[in-house]
Amino acid sequence: MFPGTMMDEPLLLKSIVERAEAMFGDQTLVSYTDDGPTEMTYAELVSRVRRLASALVKQGIGVGDRVATFAWNIREHLELYLAVPSIGAVLHPLNIRLHQSELSFIMEHAGDSMVVMEDRLADRLPRPGDHVREVVIGGAVAGRPEALAYEELIESGDPDFEFPRIPEHSACTMCYTGGTTGSPKGVVYTHRSTVLHTILESLPDYYGIRESDVVVPFVPMFHANAWGLPYAALMTGAKLVLPGAVTAPEKIAQMLSEQRATFAAGVPTIWHGVGELRELPDLSSLRMVVAGGAPLSEAFLKRYDELGIPVIQGFGMTEANPLLAVGGVPARSKAQGEELLRIRQSQGRLLPFVDFRIDEASGGELQLRGPTIAAGYYNAPEVTSEKFTEDGWMRTGDVAEVSPEGIVRIVDRTKDLIKSGGEWIPSVELEDAIVSHPAVNEAVVVAVSDARWGERPAAFVVLRPDARLDAEELRAHLAERVAKWWIPDLIEFTDAIPRTSIGKLDKKVMRVRAAEVVDRRQASPEGREPDTVTATKEKQER
Amino acid sequence: MFPGTMMDEPLLLKSIVERAEAMFGDQTLVSYTDDGPTEMTYAELVSRVRRLASALVKQGIGVGDRVATFAWNIREHLELYLAVPSIGAVLHPLNIRLHQSELSFIMEHAGDSMVVMEDRLADRLPRPGDHVREVVIGGAVAGRPEALAYEELIESGDPDFEFPRIPEHSACTMCYTGGTTGSPKGVVYTHRSTVLHTILESLPDYYGIRESDVVVPFVPMFHANAWGLPYAALMTGAKLVLPGAVTAPEKIAQMLSEQRATFAAGVPTIWHGVGELRELPDLSSLRMVVAGGAPLSEAFLKRYDELGIPVIQGFGMTEANPLLAVGGVPARSKAQGEELLRIRQSQGRLLPFVDFRIDEASGGELQLRGPTIAAGYYNAPEVTSEKFTEDGWMRTGDVAEVSPEGIVRIVDRTKDLIKSGGEWIPSVELEDAIVSHPAVNEAVVVAVSDARWGERPAAFVVLRPDARLDAEELRAHLAERVAKWWIPDLIEFTDAIPRTSIGKLDKKVMRVRAAEVVDRRQASPEGREPDTVTATKEKQER
Repeated sequence: MFPGTMMDEPLLLKSIVERAEAMFGDQTLVSYTDDGPTEMTYAELVSRVRRLASALVKQGIGVGDRVATFAWNIREHLELYLAVPSIGAVLHPLNIRLHQSELSFIMEHAGDSMVVMEDRLADRLPRPGDHVREVVIGGAVAGRPEALAYEELIESGDPDFEFPRIPEHSACTMCYTGGTTGSPKGVVYTHRSTVLHTILESLPDYYGIRESDVVVPFVPMFHANAWGLPYAALMTGAKLVLPGAVTAPEKIAQMLSEQRATFAAGVPTIWHGVGELRELPDLSSLRMVVAGGAPLSEAFLKRYDELGIPVIQGFGMTEANPLLAVGGVPARSKAQGEELLRIRQSQGRLLPFVDFRIDEASGGELQLRGPTIAAGYYNAPEVTSEKFTEDGWMRTGDVAEVSPEGIVRIVDRTKDLIKSGGEWIPSVELEDAIVSHPAVNEAVVVAVSDARWGERPAAFVVLRPDARLDAEELRAHLAERVAKWWIPDLIEFTDAIPRTSIGKLDKKVMRVRAAEVVDRRQASPEGREPDTVTATKEKQER
Repeated sequence: MFPGTMMDEPLLLKSIVERAEAMFGDQTLVSYTDDGPTEMTYAELVSRVRRLASALVKQGIGVGDRVATFAWNIREHLELYLAVPSIGAVLHPLNIRLHQSELSFIMEHAGDSMVVMEDRLADRLPRPGDHVREVVIGGAVAGRPEALAYEELIESGDPDFEFPRIPEHSACTMCYTGGTTGSPKGVVYTHRSTVLHTILESLPDYYGIRESDVVVPFVPMFHANAWGLPYAALMTGAKLVLPGAVTAPEKIAQMLSEQRATFAAGVPTIWHGVGELRELPDLSSLRMVVAGGAPLSEAFLKRYDELGIPVIQGFGMTEANPLLAVGGVPARSKAQGEELLRIRQSQGRLLPFVDFRIDEASGGELQLRGPTIAAGYYNAPEVTSEKFTEDGWMRTGDVAEVSPEGIVRIVDRTKDLIKSGGEWIPSVELEDAIVSHPAVNEAVVVAVSDARWGERPAAFVVLRPDARLDAEELRAHLAERVAKWWIPDLIEFTDAIPRTSIGKLDKKVMRVRAAEVVDRRQASPEGREPDTVTATKEKQER
């Protein structure tokens, strides 16, 4: 090999911290507490981060040790985001919305050495094993007498602490993803992957983060690195506003207005709430609102167009550090009307250096490869071999189309494809056809096993308030819209469809329910279950 | 070490080529020839690049082999920029403005296996050794009967050729830098350094390259990768306009206007020419003009302000892949008037992941470290040990100040600091004091050896047309402005100060001239040389 003559300098998160200190020391960090916003400069922040890093080392936290966090988007959480990876330890944010049994499983599986919790969240966190050191942000909490106080920890540290130089492939953060099947699975990001992700997402055609921005991540810091926004803000010198535990739409709108926010990100649920407010404060400072984690509806996009707030879809996954694409409209697109709307509802263009292929053998699955993509799950060989191909690609589980302009459009989940008599039935298209009936509010289609056809579709349907519909009427509606063999044998009306902790319709639960219905039907003497539709119909009609 | 679970995917330039094909296939490349602009889509371009890559492999060009180019900014040069690194070979653009003896030295030193030249430049290129294959773009040229025709080479290639996967530390490009001392020195960029440079320079607060841009690099492709702009345009899907051999200001202005250019880059000389045109076409599409390679004068900035064209200083060096900073004004700056002007004349903020330190022992030298910075020169251990510190930093040779906002301001070259009686005299400040005299047009101050003081300053001064000034008058002017011991003992009036091939005042030549003057003086019986000033003064007064 002809040798290059460039420095072999590692890509490390500490460079982002050092840069914020050297170049943006007078920039402001705003952090909302229950008493309102508090401010601190980046110079003060980094001084505390150096203290914290030093204190963690004194506490025996070493390279590769996992430090869990259990907190909202508060300043202390940011300090941990910066300090823990900068000493070579591994930040492990725990999702505060998980069940205690899941939290116990995850902390045990990750092998956490320390957990730092917010005082007001302490009662949601199960007691970890004795080897796990507990630290509490805020006041002392009952039942944890041995816990260290976070501020005392900081005070014990050295503000001149120098961050060590470590290899760029070192772990920096660990995130568990629930998905909709099986045990939670851990992805371990590296300094390299996170640095590359931070730079790539800050490019102009993606988040375009710049020094003049005021960035407000409503996406929780316990969700996939808060989509990388804390790191992007520090690297570019943008002002960062941490919203604390706020979730009420009117408070979100007020915060965005009073901070003159330019960039905000959160799940669609949050933005739905803001969009439905009767009165909105001045939000003209917003140049980009990212709604990510679930598809955007036409009604939602139209509402934000009316409000004059530029909203865009973000597409990512825990396994991708997490951003993969934003649903912007290509610069040269001449699309209008329905076509334009379709592009805006698409997942968008993949980040540079994220390679893709469409695997026809899996029904058109989108598969990914790149330096910001996971190669496997931590200590979970079986699920790793399911999720990753032998030739080095990650299976997204999404059935996707890619336009000639490189716009990725997810049309289904591979799991939600129903293979009936050797042919694929896309559950999402079938759901769309059901929802197109004026009486229907929401619908989920899942596969049920079938001795003859392999799989058959089963539909769960939520009607609009005061609407009436029976299964035969719905079948007649579908007959005009989809192939005859797509029409579900089992249609069940229900009051609500459960959602996952991140707001997606929970198909896992519905698959179990559908199987139970089928079992009941097979157990009945007639071999059918005539009550199913009727019973729920009666319920609807009460 | 706790293992990360991310893919170990290399950062390769081929990803940029593949992305341009998959996502921006309908984007347009414009290339100006003597007959005007020609167009091609990125899909057509990449098809030719695949053919070229395949053909090069068939010609025996392997991983690590150097392929030299000798061409203006034309489409074929871009094809080589993309194809040569994508097969793992090393692109080696030769500066067409160098002397034949320098070109021979460089080709021999680099060990080029092939050289691809533009027909109209062929007579400037010396015959390489017999082992070097010659390829000619355009028509056949006299005296090179064995040369391959470029288009025939392309035709022999396979449009479905797949680029190989190579390690990211593989060499991709080689650039020689003349500097102002010694033999040309080669820097060998790697895929990793070039990919990182491409992403970093495209960030919003730097070049901010995006899909909606129309990018016109006037900076030659034989200068430090054309500042990375061809790769940035392909990665982001921006439209790229290659201006060919154009240098006339009116043609440049016309090209920018007819292409509705948004981003253009070149040395200040070019933009001076455009700014001095009597009439300008509509240039309202320009969002950023980068002038790099030499400092920007106040008059220049004011002229562009009047024209309403946003011009910004670019700061880089061959050893830095090459961009280091752009001289933008920080978002939160409240600077106005003179202070604002001073910031705009500064070199600006360093790119993320470029670390710096100011080495007081070298008189305040700016030293750099990072993944886009060279660690040494190719096969030149002596000059490498001079230019790079033992603890892993690159010596820029620039004396710099860094403001609390991270704005780098170069105040001198370390070589141009004069150490007199143990104290530093900054030559640039002394030059500024000389030029502040209304009769002076230009001045250069260099060090001459002095038995008593170690070094003393010597000044070469060019007067304005029809102006008159003698050394004593100038000394009186200086006495009011600088310390007495700064005032040069030797002041020589001259008609012109030579410039280097890239337009900088050539201090190397002036140092030699100053030494000659001192030698003559010491050889004269009086131990002084009273003629020096008088002679040139008479010449000026003629």
